[in-house]
Amino acid sequence: MDEKALRTALLAAQYELKAKQARAVIVLVNGVEAAGKGETVKRLSEWMDSRHLLVESFGAPSKQEQQSPFYWRFWQKLPAKGQIALFFGNWYSELLNARVYKRLSRQAFAEKLAQAEDFEKLLQAEGILIVKLWFGLSAEQCQIRRQELANNPVLRWQVGQGIDWHKPKVFHRYLAAAQQLWQAQDQSPHHWHMIDGWQAKERDLSAARIVLQTLQQALVPHTSGVETALAPMLTPSLLQTLDCNADLNKKEYQHLLAEQQAQFAHWFRHKKMDKRSLVVVFEGMDAAGKGGAIRRLTAALDPREYHVMQVSAPSTQQRLLPYLHRFWQKIPSRGQCAIFDRSWYGRVLVERVDGHCPRSDWSRAYAEINQFEAELVAKGIVVVKFWLAIDKDIQLGRFQERERIPFKRFKITPDDWHNREHWDDYIIAGSEAIERTHHPERPWLIIPANNKYHARVHVLTALNKVLADICQS
Amino acid sequence: MDEKALRTALLAAQYELKAKQARAVIVLVNGVEAAGKGETVKRLSEWMDSRHLLVESFGAPSKQEQQSPFYWRFWQKLPAKGQIALFFGNWYSELLNARVYKRLSRQAFAEKLAQAEDFEKLLQAEGILIVKLWFGLSAEQCQIRRQELANNPVLRWQVGQGIDWHKPKVFHRYLAAAQQLWQAQDQSPHHWHMIDGWQAKERDLSAARIVLQTLQQALVPHTSGVETALAPMLTPSLLQTLDCNADLNKKEYQHLLAEQQAQFAHWFRHKKMDKRSLVVVFEGMDAAGKGGAIRRLTAALDPREYHVMQVSAPSTQQRLLPYLHRFWQKIPSRGQCAIFDRSWYGRVLVERVDGHCPRSDWSRAYAEINQFEAELVAKGIVVVKFWLAIDKDIQLGRFQERERIPFKRFKITPDDWHNREHWDDYIIAGSEAIERTHHPERPWLIIPANNKYHARVHVLTALNKVLADICQS
Repeated sequence: MDEKALRTALLAAQYELKAKQARAVIVLVNGVEAAGKGETVKRLSEWMDSRHLLVESFGAPSKQEQQSPFYWRFWQKLPAKGQIALFFGNWYSELLNARVYKRLSRQAFAEKLAQAEDFEKLLQAEGILIVKLWFGLSAEQCQIRRQELANNPVLRWQVGQGIDWHKPKVFHRYLAAAQQLWQAQDQSPHHWHMIDGWQAKERDLSAARIVLQTLQQALVPHTSGVETALAPMLTPSLLQTLDCNADLNKKEYQHLLAEQQAQFAHWFRHKKMDKRSLVVVFEGMDAAGKGGAIRRLTAALDPREYHVMQVSAPSTQQRLLPYLHRFWQKIPSRGQCAIFDRSWYGRVLVERVDGHCPRSDWSRAYAEINQFEAELVAKGIVVVKFWLAIDKDIQLGRFQERERIPFKRFKITPDDWHNREHWDDYIIAGSEAIERTHHPERPWLIIPANNKYHARVHVLTALNKVLADICQS
Repeated sequence: MDEKALRTALLAAQYELKAKQARAVIVLVNGVEAAGKGETVKRLSEWMDSRHLLVESFGAPSKQEQQSPFYWRFWQKLPAKGQIALFFGNWYSELLNARVYKRLSRQAFAEKLAQAEDFEKLLQAEGILIVKLWFGLSAEQCQIRRQELANNPVLRWQVGQGIDWHKPKVFHRYLAAAQQLWQAQDQSPHHWHMIDGWQAKERDLSAARIVLQTLQQALVPHTSGVETALAPMLTPSLLQTLDCNADLNKKEYQHLLAEQQAQFAHWFRHKKMDKRSLVVVFEGMDAAGKGGAIRRLTAALDPREYHVMQVSAPSTQQRLLPYLHRFWQKIPSRGQCAIFDRSWYGRVLVERVDGHCPRSDWSRAYAEINQFEAELVAKGIVVVKFWLAIDKDIQLGRFQERERIPFKRFKITPDDWHNREHWDDYIIAGSEAIERTHHPERPWLIIPANNKYHARVHVLTALNKVLADICQS
């Protein structure tokens, strides 16, 4: 295919992808210095309709990015279905540099590569096609090209960026790390495509051909993958057999609430929390008292310190992005608290029960959620998840009260009555979610919530215990 | 109106606003320490449907925010039509603190207040209602309340934030600055509402009543204001009488292009540019050669250093926000270059010519654009605007070529032919835009562009001259 035909085909594929919104495409652009990565990125922007082509360049992470989970900044820039993004500089550039300068051992590097594959598998399952281009030059070619660049006043600035390419030892360490990378992913659907960086014209055409091929693959509608085989449940009726009663009278409540709020105000501001942040998830049946519990928690916080995210069904635009995308956008920075009134567990609760996503999607979500929360915890973010448990007749009483009081009526919708009809399915889904995603470092705490007073105090007490353990360790 | 009726009315108004999307509302929350600002913010979140209430807290600006224009971070968080945002901490908190600690003289403070009013006028004209709440306490009340807080383990952390409230001198300086603020805006539609912070219950109710009143005002559809009276044009036929011819043969072009690209590569990386960034705007008729000129410019840049924004008609979501909002989102950070292939001038070009906005909107846009660009320049951002000028028959030839070549066909749409029919109106609108927004510090540079070679070299030469002047000053 000559250049003209290739450009015509690229444009056609790009427009078809945009119209169909079947999948998204990420092109990873990596390789050695002076191999023409930037030139090819520009050529592709020229050949394709650049209004619909995202070019995302990731340099060294900023301070805020360093304090966030490793993949946080990449999550922010994911293309939506129908879009193509060129990631120039990406997770591999960061990992390779760390390996070259021995900030990562060979073993640690291998572990990071395995994490990268998990990340890519998730994206793949969510409809993002990833294609990897490696722009290569031999050591000799690289030196010649560097010399040419140094003599070219337009491009001179390109020389000497990033790692110390002029040192043969560094070049060879880089190549050794790259080889480890290629081999690790040799058998993966996300293997590397080698582009010879020596001849500019042929380099651009090779890259464009691979991009075209990927775009054409992306036109085939994304089909949900196979169902994930899940281990048998140990406590399938966890929530069903739970006693949701626990008494607390108003006087005791007021006393205990003030005491626990004071403790929360103390622990949240403990010096050991300075480099941490807090994520609190609330799940449970409608009218379980999530909103009231959240208000008793935020009473001890400054509005500048927390953010409550009330989660409902994803919008049309959000559906074009991976399910976890909108939650990654709300990860709190240091010293901040993010409270989720419903959360990413929607995938394995309402979406599962109402059949909004196929079994293949929700069955793999447990592992994805565990991976997501583990990334937060690894970065020092405290993750606590509450299930507020009420009985079915208690819910009915609260629904009826909401319908009676004008300024509470907005809280009750036909959806709530609909969900109530599926009570038993929710209980099953909830039990399964809790069992499959409970972890000592990101625990589920089940709160008997028939009595609101008790539930509110219990939430604070349990949260304080988690924080106290961290601050006193 | 008692609490129950007030809550019911607040919710009704909130839902009606959301459904009508007539306007947006910003509630500014300011006042002295311990007057219950945070408590009232929480109360309003409780009384209203907090799923549709944005609470934005602005603390001390981050490093990136300090390097950006003052209003940049507020632009990022503006509510869309149909939304309500509580701005807890805002431009006034920053200005008042600066005044208290004498980082601003009385005169400088007054100037900043005038700028704030310009900003608010723009928001108002774009359909955002602003209401200002001042939470007050006397010096004695403030000390008593501070003492109470210090004795309350849940709220103790509130004491000692921000300025040194415990020093009577500081308190009085704060109040003096506040008085200057209130008086300056006494006659404005955006005057301050005083809330007595002493009685918690009455404080919350007063604030809620004012918010309700504002929501109800916001239900009335936003009507475009009066037309802005514009000075008579000095050069109404500026573009009409222009000679768009200028020759350059291919050989000279190649030589000059390389030379100018080398200079651009040099100046863009000059040490005097380290704390600056660059904004380049391209306007002109369809097929004037904007894309080609942009590619010759970016040839000297790393993809990590620049971003090209191709501007088309605003999306439905963008229409719910002030016109300049999406451009504020693309302001380059230090060391970066943002290139606009069409721009905010759309308001006074295509939107004016095609009647997409009333005269009242585009006639005030010149002043808003000048204000916007002046804010960028004041923060060290270099702003250069190119008008690529071609003759009508040249455009026809290029249109026909685009239709003939398969991989160029995507560049030509019925819109282009439609715009061509309004050629003369565009020429008039373009001439007016240039005259009304040209300024030595953010100049318009008119480029004869019948010959593409000449245009590309001319753009680079002119840009280099601007950068050289800055770097050599």
